[in-house]
Amino acid sequence: MMDALVSTTLQEYGSLTRAALERYLPDREPRRHLYDLLAEYPRRPGKMMRSSLCIATARAFGARLDEALGTAVAIELLHNALLIHDDIEDDSEQRRGRPTLHVLHGIPLALNAGDTLTLMSLRPLIDNASTFGPRLSLRILEETERMARESAEGQAMELGWRRDNSVDVDEAAYLEMVLKKTCWLATIYPTRVGALIGTRGGVDLEPFIRFGFFVGAAFQIQDDILNLVGDWDRYGKERDGDLWEGKRTLMLIRLLRECTRDERERVYALLQLARAEKTPEQIRWIRERMDAYGCIDYAAQIARGLAGAALHEYSLLYARVPASRDKQFIEALVTWVLERS
Amino acid sequence: MMDALVSTTLQEYGSLTRAALERYLPDREPRRHLYDLLAEYPRRPGKMMRSSLCIATARAFGARLDEALGTAVAIELLHNALLIHDDIEDDSEQRRGRPTLHVLHGIPLALNAGDTLTLMSLRPLIDNASTFGPRLSLRILEETERMARESAEGQAMELGWRRDNSVDVDEAAYLEMVLKKTCWLATIYPTRVGALIGTRGGVDLEPFIRFGFFVGAAFQIQDDILNLVGDWDRYGKERDGDLWEGKRTLMLIRLLRECTRDERERVYALLQLARAEKTPEQIRWIRERMDAYGCIDYAAQIARGLAGAALHEYSLLYARVPASRDKQFIEALVTWVLERS
Repeated sequence: MMDALVSTTLQEYGSLTRAALERYLPDREPRRHLYDLLAEYPRRPGKMMRSSLCIATARAFGARLDEALGTAVAIELLHNALLIHDDIEDDSEQRRGRPTLHVLHGIPLALNAGDTLTLMSLRPLIDNASTFGPRLSLRILEETERMARESAEGQAMELGWRRDNSVDVDEAAYLEMVLKKTCWLATIYPTRVGALIGTRGGVDLEPFIRFGFFVGAAFQIQDDILNLVGDWDRYGKERDGDLWEGKRTLMLIRLLRECTRDERERVYALLQLARAEKTPEQIRWIRERMDAYGCIDYAAQIARGLAGAALHEYSLLYARVPASRDKQFIEALVTWVLERS
Repeated sequence: MMDALVSTTLQEYGSLTRAALERYLPDREPRRHLYDLLAEYPRRPGKMMRSSLCIATARAFGARLDEALGTAVAIELLHNALLIHDDIEDDSEQRRGRPTLHVLHGIPLALNAGDTLTLMSLRPLIDNASTFGPRLSLRILEETERMARESAEGQAMELGWRRDNSVDVDEAAYLEMVLKKTCWLATIYPTRVGALIGTRGGVDLEPFIRFGFFVGAAFQIQDDILNLVGDWDRYGKERDGDLWEGKRTLMLIRLLRECTRDERERVYALLQLARAEKTPEQIRWIRERMDAYGCIDYAAQIARGLAGAALHEYSLLYARVPASRDKQFIEALVTWVLERS
């Protein structure tokens, strides 16, 4: 029943956000080298979790739905812009069930489309001024700049580990990276700006970092698990893509900690290889070692712990917020991030 | 004497902008994978033309210098961010006399540094609110979003021509591309937001597009000429880099129009080749054909015509603006863009 509430709400808020987003996609030249490209990811199927969380938080704190819609659109635009660039940086091949943008159009045009989408995300945030004035709109832009900086720091950490084949990435470093790279955009920013809109700026934003971190980290770990065990058709990225890309996940960190010295050296040697130099046998071997050491179960257990902490933060944060479907959705979302497949 | 005014002003406003910019560069981790990278281009020697033009326009229209400084910083941050991404898109090897950022650090980290710098450029624009309130600050952010969109469209046009090896790029298309790709960031935006600051929003911004286009296009054509004939040490990019990159310049368009059919086919065949497949002999041959058909002289003549048109627009735009050193600088800059070497 709670699950049904989550999917219904995601669908409802997601469609409204998609419709509003379409109005921000320019219908003019240059189409073939720019505007067709940047419309691709936003039009592919996506969960719309970030934008829905923003709308639900705004409503739970007292806003009307339409007051949060522009900011929800900005979140999706920026999220998709970062996905385009992430896919280039990670040399990913699949996104939402289709080839990545740079695979389809080459790196130069894809990179430029991502830049355009990034700065187009400012448009609805500037338009916010007609809804709730320039002061609160600027406050939200300030939050946007902070979030973008946190995301970029997280991305730099992860890319740096991969480039340098770092041997000293422990769980604490991993969680800091996830806080920055994933949680700020996925959960912290949507709930902070949602609460700003709902309260017209009259709320302490600090606790939203804790809540967003716990939910967002559980979400990311589950996402990484799905990359290994998920149903490929529904998941939309290539199976074992993270292993091919040499991504530092909680499962990989656990494996490196639990395995023998010989195995550890072999894993690092494999991580060192470029994507094209790796073989399916090598990927299978890492994957099999992860099972042997129970790394996926271990990660799932950490994710459950984080979700529990998120529910605790939720109860503090929403103690005095009146009951509503949106409030229920936010609570239910915590469990949902672990259960989606 | 006018030339001395230009260099003195560029130096003065440039140093002030550089000092103010330093305060926006974070001094914290992750340094080696992010903040050291994004500080590189802004700290290399540059003309600081864009930011100086913004400050001078603001002052000519009545603002205090410090009122324009934040926006000048934003211009430099965004300009440098776009340079990082342009260099990846164009596969450039040199920038301001040193290797490009992706050559030094790899594409993933350079791309991410560019994204960070892009969104960091919002910070001084948001801080503007403490100087002249949220309304005018949002108006400048609106201009920023417009400019970013125009730049991206121009970049898409140019990258598209190159990727598809387009055979139908004429002078009109070239000038439209330059209007978007170069002029909006280099001259139109700095003068528009400068005038907004100087008049607190009370000015018609339309004529600044014409003035900015004429100066900016003259600047771009001169820049492309310098790529072929310039003093390499002072120019800071690799000699003939545009030919290696297959960039559509006015000289190339003129060559394709003037040469024989056999030569045209050979030029297109060479343009089709990837950078690494080209040989120095082939580049020398194109370069020599350009001389044979007087393409550089032709382009220099067009640039002079554009500068003349810019001076005419200047006289209309500044007719009722009181005389000042800043007004003089703006006039002198028009001639300077043609004379720099």
